[in-house]
Amino acid sequence: MKKFIFILLVVTVFSCSSTKTQQAFPLYIKDLNPKQELSAAMKRSFHNYEAPRFLDNELYSAFKYTKLQGLNYNNGDGTISRRDPSKIIFENGKYYIWYTHRKTSTPPSGFDKSNDTIPSVDWDLCEIWYATSTDGFTWEEQGVAIPRPPKPNPGHRSVATSDILKFKGKYYLYYQAFSAASGNGSDACPVAMSFADSPDGPWTPLNQVVIDYGAENEWDHRVIHDPYPLVHNGKIYIYYKSGFDERDAKNHHWDGWGCAISDNPTGPFVKHPLNPVMNSGHEVSLFPYKEGLAAIVTTDGLEHHTIQYAKDWVNFEIASVTALLPIAAGPYSPDAFTDNKNADGITWGLSHFINAGGDWKNGMYTELVRFDCDLSKKVNDLDMKNSYIFLPYEIYYKQGLNKEQKERIFKENELLLNQKN
Amino acid sequence: MKKFIFILLVVTVFSCSSTKTQQAFPLYIKDLNPKQELSAAMKRSFHNYEAPRFLDNELYSAFKYTKLQGLNYNNGDGTISRRDPSKIIFENGKYYIWYTHRKTSTPPSGFDKSNDTIPSVDWDLCEIWYATSTDGFTWEEQGVAIPRPPKPNPGHRSVATSDILKFKGKYYLYYQAFSAASGNGSDACPVAMSFADSPDGPWTPLNQVVIDYGAENEWDHRVIHDPYPLVHNGKIYIYYKSGFDERDAKNHHWDGWGCAISDNPTGPFVKHPLNPVMNSGHEVSLFPYKEGLAAIVTTDGLEHHTIQYAKDWVNFEIASVTALLPIAAGPYSPDAFTDNKNADGITWGLSHFINAGGDWKNGMYTELVRFDCDLSKKVNDLDMKNSYIFLPYEIYYKQGLNKEQKERIFKENELLLNQKN
Repeated sequence: MKKFIFILLVVTVFSCSSTKTQQAFPLYIKDLNPKQELSAAMKRSFHNYEAPRFLDNELYSAFKYTKLQGLNYNNGDGTISRRDPSKIIFENGKYYIWYTHRKTSTPPSGFDKSNDTIPSVDWDLCEIWYATSTDGFTWEEQGVAIPRPPKPNPGHRSVATSDILKFKGKYYLYYQAFSAASGNGSDACPVAMSFADSPDGPWTPLNQVVIDYGAENEWDHRVIHDPYPLVHNGKIYIYYKSGFDERDAKNHHWDGWGCAISDNPTGPFVKHPLNPVMNSGHEVSLFPYKEGLAAIVTTDGLEHHTIQYAKDWVNFEIASVTALLPIAAGPYSPDAFTDNKNADGITWGLSHFINAGGDWKNGMYTELVRFDCDLSKKVNDLDMKNSYIFLPYEIYYKQGLNKEQKERIFKENELLLNQKN
Repeated sequence: MKKFIFILLVVTVFSCSSTKTQQAFPLYIKDLNPKQELSAAMKRSFHNYEAPRFLDNELYSAFKYTKLQGLNYNNGDGTISRRDPSKIIFENGKYYIWYTHRKTSTPPSGFDKSNDTIPSVDWDLCEIWYATSTDGFTWEEQGVAIPRPPKPNPGHRSVATSDILKFKGKYYLYYQAFSAASGNGSDACPVAMSFADSPDGPWTPLNQVVIDYGAENEWDHRVIHDPYPLVHNGKIYIYYKSGFDERDAKNHHWDGWGCAISDNPTGPFVKHPLNPVMNSGHEVSLFPYKEGLAAIVTTDGLEHHTIQYAKDWVNFEIASVTALLPIAAGPYSPDAFTDNKNADGITWGLSHFINAGGDWKNGMYTELVRFDCDLSKKVNDLDMKNSYIFLPYEIYYKQGLNKEQKERIFKENELLLNQKN
């Protein structure tokens, strides 16, 4: 132990003296001396990220958005909604996508007004539909993939938030199966699954819970949302979201993501002991990159607005901070099921805009949208490595002070003025 | 050494077995076992941030914006501009702020068209003006503080981007002193300083360079911008921005911040050996918080959109990731010069919106705006701890694909379609 302390002292003294005498950081990073002592921020630039500059960081992107063609929303009256797009797969010469589809006689009307035909929330009274496209911009809706099963099967109230797995030549859709209208404080629904020999179906329901809630005192006791299947090391990895701890100011739980692993699409799925593996993110969105897994963490939580990366598919680190990220992104991830140890990443997908037709409970519906990005090794698009995007300043002014805030500020000013007078 | 390796092995084996047998993460974090093994992301939640939840993280905030009263911009014709607000100080029963003021016969017209009266860029042909307020919303412009000195003094072309220091009862304005129009590839200007006994002046120029450029091969050789003085441990700490390395896709250098320290406002200022101390951020904005220093890192660089914190005023760590941060923030930071080892932080300031009147070289001017936030221990405002802010989706659609991107996507689709047919 004494020897250890002595070494520590020597290192400390040396380190201090090198700080005092070292040359200034160079003008060009190609001239950087590997022994240059760095500040904490510069250390992160060189050690925590794929590259110290945006242009070379494949996991940084600005995002572009394009309105889709071919999907109608009944003139935005709130009676048609499409949300929570799955990953996109390319089969039979076209792109396939699945999503939550609502077509009801009225917009969502809140829990109290809901009945067998009036939806409580946007994802109530829904089915899983699918659409195909040859260019990713114009989509042909193909109709229902997973209908609501008859009572008392889970999902008889609504099936929503699906995602696709292709495994050993067969297709599996995982989704949330609601037996009661959401919006009354609970949003509980087991994860169900249906399988098919073709992406066009027909789909056969497994009729059993695939990933179960945690026990009463466990983090994922309340909900298992957003099942997101991928293939890694020959196994099925399903990532999912749950909400734990106290609700916050916006009535949100602490959103985290878990991971459950199985040899077979039907389970049993064993939850990873290090769950939750993600500390932020209201929706689950991931794609294989190199040997690891990248995450799009858009809303909610301390590390929202980040792209993260886990070389081991479990321990995520921040890979970049960005803005205007796609919400509930369903990427076209060619390596989602290929178990490729050198995956390229993604360049596009579909995401959604909620509150398209109004606010919560008032004409609300959700619209699918295409996003493009450069989170790929093959594409190197300078226009998507921009880190200085100007938003119209009206957007800032819309974030205005409320009455209580104005009163607090008035009082603080008064206090200061009186102190000085 | 053998003993050390043996201990390591034991720890590793124990750690693996504990992973396999450990209980699931609890539903409430109050029930978290301190020995619970955590994923990398959850480790950060508990160890890298002030608190694992937004509500308790004093260095997380959503930002609110309010249009200022009392300052006119000639109906936005581009002939009046106000930008780069200083920190705000409270003296003589009112708030004081200094800023770059341009009043020219034409808007900025580019370097080639610039002459003695036509500005090249928005910060060309400027003076440092100041305004006062008793509520922070309505400002009375008091006129010029630092005029352009006569030739050949540095600043005879433009004086801009000032910040204020109060030290031992006297006032010091640090600013950029241009001797030539900017916009021709160079934006070089020494840091000048003027001093006064009162914030209302009169201001006496020191007439010497306060912080010099680095040598030819050093990171801060090109420019020393945005001098930002604070008091720490009885000394003056001036933070500043420089641009190094190759220019990026948007013709930006790699922006980093340095720190230069002196016992006296007049210098000599000694640059910190660990410079650059910040790896991102096109404008310098800081405020004392607790015993350390917090930074608002808004645009440009890998770690844009973050609030950072350096307990030792040098080694910054990410304290939160947020959105719609104030640009070129000049906060009201009551502890900027008090050397308080338990500083409270900030709740408001002024920032700016560039391109208010049009785009670059076309009617452009810059407008000051008030921002409010909860980056303070005293204020605890749930509405400002929101992490789920919806922007209008038109903003996303404005980030559209360009012609080259559309062509690339078309080709990629063709390739995929042909592979499969």
